[in-house]
Amino acid sequence: MARLQAIYHIRCDARSIDARAQAIAVEQSVEMPVTAIDDRAVLAEIVGRVEDVREIGGGLFEARISLSAATVGRDAGQLLNMLFGNTSLHDDVTLHDAEIPGELAAVFGGPRHGLDGLRRRAGAGRRALTCAAIKPQGLPPAKLADIARAFTAGGIDYIKDDHGLADQSYSPFRERVAAIATTLADAKSRYVPSITGDLDAMRRQIAIVRDAGIDTVMVAPMVSGVSSFHRLVADNPDMAFLAHPSLAGAARIAPPFHFGGLFRMLGADAVIFPHHGGRFGYSAATCKAIAERARNARNGLKPCVPVLAGGMSRERVGEILEFYGADIMLLIGGALLEAREHLTQAATAFVDAVHDWKPI
Amino acid sequence: MARLQAIYHIRCDARSIDARAQAIAVEQSVEMPVTAIDDRAVLAEIVGRVEDVREIGGGLFEARISLSAATVGRDAGQLLNMLFGNTSLHDDVTLHDAEIPGELAAVFGGPRHGLDGLRRRAGAGRRALTCAAIKPQGLPPAKLADIARAFTAGGIDYIKDDHGLADQSYSPFRERVAAIATTLADAKSRYVPSITGDLDAMRRQIAIVRDAGIDTVMVAPMVSGVSSFHRLVADNPDMAFLAHPSLAGAARIAPPFHFGGLFRMLGADAVIFPHHGGRFGYSAATCKAIAERARNARNGLKPCVPVLAGGMSRERVGEILEFYGADIMLLIGGALLEAREHLTQAATAFVDAVHDWKPI
Repeated sequence: MARLQAIYHIRCDARSIDARAQAIAVEQSVEMPVTAIDDRAVLAEIVGRVEDVREIGGGLFEARISLSAATVGRDAGQLLNMLFGNTSLHDDVTLHDAEIPGELAAVFGGPRHGLDGLRRRAGAGRRALTCAAIKPQGLPPAKLADIARAFTAGGIDYIKDDHGLADQSYSPFRERVAAIATTLADAKSRYVPSITGDLDAMRRQIAIVRDAGIDTVMVAPMVSGVSSFHRLVADNPDMAFLAHPSLAGAARIAPPFHFGGLFRMLGADAVIFPHHGGRFGYSAATCKAIAERARNARNGLKPCVPVLAGGMSRERVGEILEFYGADIMLLIGGALLEAREHLTQAATAFVDAVHDWKPI
Repeated sequence: MARLQAIYHIRCDARSIDARAQAIAVEQSVEMPVTAIDDRAVLAEIVGRVEDVREIGGGLFEARISLSAATVGRDAGQLLNMLFGNTSLHDDVTLHDAEIPGELAAVFGGPRHGLDGLRRRAGAGRRALTCAAIKPQGLPPAKLADIARAFTAGGIDYIKDDHGLADQSYSPFRERVAAIATTLADAKSRYVPSITGDLDAMRRQIAIVRDAGIDTVMVAPMVSGVSSFHRLVADNPDMAFLAHPSLAGAARIAPPFHFGGLFRMLGADAVIFPHHGGRFGYSAATCKAIAERARNARNGLKPCVPVLAGGMSRERVGEILEFYGADIMLLIGGALLEAREHLTQAATAFVDAVHDWKPI
């Protein structure tokens, strides 16, 4: 029977680490005293196994624990439940990584479009993709559409809703999508609405956007629930999905696995995350590891596009492209909007900087 | 326009705290430079406001930030997105608490059954309720039903699935529920199946359990997604819901708000959490605060039952009842199963200890 490998980082003293690792293996599997289990199949297959423990410095240990893939079934929520359900309640443990057997990864399927698909839709060849965000929330649909118009005039590839835009009384989803889709009807830019609510609501929203000729949407999997996120991906193979990191936290599940591993495996064609040096505290090494994990050859999954965000600016375009190469999407939000009445020019300058970039 | 109050704890130096608080207010609302906003309604209502900042010791500051309730609409996921979406990515910030206006709390509605409803179903009068967990996962339905039989012979009120039990090939949901429901058909004990998967799957499971005459289920809202959890509650007013803390983490959203505030408001009739001194690291003060928050008079919501779990034993029953009083449910899992062939006697001893308890 195939096994998953869950890799935890545990803050612990050396005398206690073996017992801690064993306790996590039990907690994440049978959750009861192993001595009270007499079923041989459960003992042989279902009880978590500590495969390796090693000290990694700074008072941290890394424990590798294997779990039966049969416990996951075919559900993304149950995968998270098995990997980190109760252990998330221990604030001295983080889920650092997980290795998913190929059969299970194939059940989830990974990106349906990925890097090549998103480039093809934008007619982008091998260059980096550009993205801008429509905000602030609180504006009525017509004003949001004005912002989208300026972005498309500047040549932005993907124009996404701010993740705060939901189905609000001052800007109902249907009216917002209609206004922006009309504005972008003949444009090359792709509009990417933010899809929110329970699974029923998200399905209604996807039906609205499909009717409007839109083929790319954004979902925050930790808000929607990973099972419902994956259900949307599986049921809508024509749609490309950007995953937003809202609620994904920073400290408890390591971002390279969370965004580059899990979200990609569940079908994110692109994952948005904060590049270092912006408004968030991710290190350069973390960002590099997320991008590597999102794009590498793994389990036959298509590459997922890293979308760099979180306080980017035109001035940083060259530096970011040097850092990641061109297989990315660059998202500038507030820094463009600061140009106010010169928004189109600011968008144009951003687009030009991306299109003109050549590796040194 | 009504406003929510979000209360954050921020690890920060005194010189930077005002700027940090202001940055969070912007991040959690318009997410763009305020100077670039000219819409007066957005500036007046939508931009988050720092209402108060104070030092609370240990290098921590508490910032109270108000947000427009209109940004939430009627969706639980959007509520979490507004309260902690992007700010969860800052590992030096926790969401400590939130005050939700009564109108918004009424939209979500709180427990449909709560303490009185769960006691009535169990015929329990004013005493504490008892609960035990069916495990380990990996056993076939018939063996799980044997465990349920022993628990009901011992007089346990609520017999719940371990949260690791999902829809797995070795114990499919439908067969497990059929086996256990048949075993408990004439018993006074209530069976509480664990409901998992996307919203469609959870609905199919609830239809199966209702057909089997079951009226109480368990869901892990952070795994299912809070919007889909609330959808199930709203669509199934006859069902009582136990909320499981899987994936709820420890460090980033304070447990009193998370379990006692949020899960209750979204409709949890009972919330499971680890009592201190068991396998998890919650302090006595944290546990007391969760229970207080779950049961207090707030926004006209029914009291939600604290369910103490996470390594409890019969020997601790008196201490736990002294600590919380009798308006609780006590959940003993592994410590009962250790009795093996004497499981019924162990369950009886647990039940007797709860029934016989009198305040000192």
